[in-house]
Amino acid sequence: MQVSEAEWTDIEKNIAKTAFDQAYKREIEALLKQVQQEVCSLQELNDLWQLHDFLSARRHEIEGKYNYQYSALLFVFAGLVKDGWLHLQELEGLGKDKLSKVAALARM
Amino acid sequence: MQVSEAEWTDIEKNIAKTAFDQAYKREIEALLKQVQQEVCSLQELNDLWQLHDFLSARRHEIEGKYNYQYSALLFVFAGLVKDGWLHLQELEGLGKDKLSKVAALARM
Repeated sequence: MQVSEAEWTDIEKNIAKTAFDQAYKREIEALLKQVQQEVCSLQELNDLWQLHDFLSARRHEIEGKYNYQYSALLFVFAGLVKDGWLHLQELEGLGKDKLSKVAALARM
Repeated sequence: MQVSEAEWTDIEKNIAKTAFDQAYKREIEALLKQVQQEVCSLQELNDLWQLHDFLSARRHEIEGKYNYQYSALLFVFAGLVKDGWLHLQELEGLGKDKLSKVAALARM
């Protein structure tokens, strides 16, 4: 299922980068908004440590997930589609084989 | 410099517990307020990870610091006085030896 960089055309690379950045932007904006909302309801120290635990988990997840390497990109896109940060239509222009792989992985 | 529990009278224990709780309340309230202010100015992911680093450090510090054991209490009070979370006057009623130890440690 891995696709090396050589198998991406320049046009596909542009589409991929735009989609990747868009998903990242969406997820980060949602996270910032969520943190701002949660902070409003902080009442006591335990709430703050829960926020800290939440940030630890999200940081670990996000730093691992947004890995822009062509060999992993179809998996990354599939995860982003599955989680709602990216729409399949935003990948239109990629080769049909790539699109169908992303769609199949996203359904798993 | 350590003072075992046997060396604390009941009156001193009450004064100590009240002062300890008061300092804790002050520090936690200040921390919650600080986090709420910092979250207002979150612009991007790096700001959020800076907040996460800050919370990691504060959690480690606070969980270590608020240790209510009589043998350690004079050191704890000295640190709280030094950092401004407790006033020496709030410890009035403790034996003079204890007060002077706290005052001396707080100046170090």
